[in-house]
Amino acid sequence: MLFKIIVVGKMKDRALEAHVKTYMTRLSPYAKIEIVELRDSNPENEGVKILEQLENEKGFVIVLSEEGVEMTSTEFSAKLMGLDRKAVLVIGGPYGLADGVKKRADLLLALSRMTFTHEMARYFLFEQLYRAIMIGKGKNYHN
Amino acid sequence: MLFKIIVVGKMKDRALEAHVKTYMTRLSPYAKIEIVELRDSNPENEGVKILEQLENEKGFVIVLSEEGVEMTSTEFSAKLMGLDRKAVLVIGGPYGLADGVKKRADLLLALSRMTFTHEMARYFLFEQLYRAIMIGKGKNYHN
Repeated sequence: MLFKIIVVGKMKDRALEAHVKTYMTRLSPYAKIEIVELRDSNPENEGVKILEQLENEKGFVIVLSEEGVEMTSTEFSAKLMGLDRKAVLVIGGPYGLADGVKKRADLLLALSRMTFTHEMARYFLFEQLYRAIMIGKGKNYHN
Repeated sequence: MLFKIIVVGKMKDRALEAHVKTYMTRLSPYAKIEIVELRDSNPENEGVKILEQLENEKGFVIVLSEEGVEMTSTEFSAKLMGLDRKAVLVIGGPYGLADGVKKRADLLLALSRMTFTHEMARYFLFEQLYRAIMIGKGKNYHN
């Protein structure tokens, strides 16, 4: 699997950052992951930079947004495993995403109906990517 | 506000445990929180112990379960703020919850359609409790 993950802003929470890194390490035998970390400013400027990154992108673009559809982990796994191309995942900054980015998405995905911090979303997403691969491989995974 | 939070098992993830403690500290000016940590064993035994805790409980019992209803953070805040009694929140262990506990719930709540670890759920819930109070007080909160 190929993943490209576009994030806005550095993680300030060192503990969550460490957890994200742990999942990257766990994912490494199964997936090649490219991380693009864009500087945070405001949703409009961030949107321009994200769209630049997506301009010639042939991958399947999944944008995290509270307005998106929800999936179970099993559905998310099936979606990722069924792709014949790179999965490009976009997580905005603390102040949300420009509409243009949401419109560019092949899939607008909500992790929850609840609002939580974008750093938690980053951690949550990496855990779901790992979970998706474990589900796809039929492996047990509880922790 | 009065919260009683019934959890199963000690947190093994020290970083997430520290985050939970941070939210407990942040909540302390607004809410009195009692934590009941039950020993983990298996869902049946855990269920018996949880139901013992709930036997003479007059509070409003919210049980976290993937089968539950979802709410936005604003809806969750309104629900909590509208209670005229203690909110009792129950989070099961890594292997799920006995049916009897789910049936005892006044509200069966799903944090997400996705599955994640029960330690993440604990962290997520504390963040949502703090967020609920900030929303209820009309305070801005992004982090």
